[in-house]
Amino acid sequence: MNAVILLSGGLDSTTCMAVAKQQGYDLYPISFDYHQRNKIELEGAKEIAKFFGAKRHLIIDTNMNAIGGSALTDENIEVPKGNVDRKDNDVPVTYVPSRNLIFLSYALGYAEVVKADAIFIGVNAVDFSGYPDCRPEFIQKFQDMADYACKTTAVDGKKIKIVTPLQSLSKKEIIQLGTKLGAPYHLTRSCYNGREKACGVCDSCKLRLRGFAEAGIKDPIAYEKNYNDVTKNHIAYENGE
Amino acid sequence: MNAVILLSGGLDSTTCMAVAKQQGYDLYPISFDYHQRNKIELEGAKEIAKFFGAKRHLIIDTNMNAIGGSALTDENIEVPKGNVDRKDNDVPVTYVPSRNLIFLSYALGYAEVVKADAIFIGVNAVDFSGYPDCRPEFIQKFQDMADYACKTTAVDGKKIKIVTPLQSLSKKEIIQLGTKLGAPYHLTRSCYNGREKACGVCDSCKLRLRGFAEAGIKDPIAYEKNYNDVTKNHIAYENGE
Repeated sequence: MNAVILLSGGLDSTTCMAVAKQQGYDLYPISFDYHQRNKIELEGAKEIAKFFGAKRHLIIDTNMNAIGGSALTDENIEVPKGNVDRKDNDVPVTYVPSRNLIFLSYALGYAEVVKADAIFIGVNAVDFSGYPDCRPEFIQKFQDMADYACKTTAVDGKKIKIVTPLQSLSKKEIIQLGTKLGAPYHLTRSCYNGREKACGVCDSCKLRLRGFAEAGIKDPIAYEKNYNDVTKNHIAYENGE
Repeated sequence: MNAVILLSGGLDSTTCMAVAKQQGYDLYPISFDYHQRNKIELEGAKEIAKFFGAKRHLIIDTNMNAIGGSALTDENIEVPKGNVDRKDNDVPVTYVPSRNLIFLSYALGYAEVVKADAIFIGVNAVDFSGYPDCRPEFIQKFQDMADYACKTTAVDGKKIKIVTPLQSLSKKEIIQLGTKLGAPYHLTRSCYNGREKACGVCDSCKLRLRGFAEAGIKDPIAYEKNYNDVTKNHIAYENGE
């Protein structure tokens, strides 16, 4: 029983690996080198794949940045400091057009080749930062389309199921779940800035820090300041810093 | 009025360029260097983009071949000689898993960035070689999904329409249409083998040659033998060669 897992090397995808492993799947993680700023995350992904004893770790190289329009890949757009409480329809400039769609499309082709019957993706709607392609409606539409997209599904009538185990979980609940399953959070990276230590102030860091603080668990990775002190972080969060 | 056009450098996508141009669109072709055997096709795509005065020609580099499972990208699988009359549900080994899906996913992200309201793709069901992702059902499902996939469509409620002007045309009709619109077929490539001259015997060459023969037009590109002699080709086709 094989599963393809979209593995960025962040908190959510690493939790997905742990969930898929627990469900008894042989793991075929797929990661993307899309010339993102946080390349260090990709190095983490390799270690995470090894940690879980993955059958194979496929890394797709793509100059997705050539599409333009995102602070995550375009050096000319500044990564904004975090504002995790924005309104839902205020999509941030860190949005990469069609990113999850592109990731899932590769994953579907790969799932067909390795005869996987599931693709795990760590999207979640509760903490989502305003990306349309993290929403459950999008995943459902992708599933509908996937049933017509490839030989396995369209011709042989086999189902490749898009699994979103974190869909309804808060960051706090994700961290509690992953911790219970032994997910190697010390190997994960979340920071948008991609320096050796996490910045602690970008959207992604703030969501992560808030999640660990609410879960009452110390974030095991290194920050530029000691943002991961649980008590301090609570205070920083309450102050909207 | 902008349109993204999936431009492989083959006959169909070049005809799509001509159709979009005629409809008054500013053209934003997108091509893929996916380490395919017929790289020469990509060189043709560049010339075709220039021919049409495209605003910009985006080339996405991706090691899609790492997914495996296709004779078009895997050196270890032999490209079969043509059998254009196979049954519909006999998918050939030249099938690249999720290829059109991956192409369309990038095109959708790019369409959002360049504010295009249409994506042209040269799929057609009549002559299709058994690829599930060339079928109208797939395109319709992709369209449904696209409405939920990106900021422009999901949040701003703008439509990015997937346009398939060749959907119901035979190869003969495509060639007649393109010829009428002045499509530069002398710059196009179709052969799966990617040598300087077209092989004339692979699936793609056979479909092309049959189309030109049926249209009563001489194919302007060079073949390893003179397959593009209209009369001879008719005979070769009738003999199933």
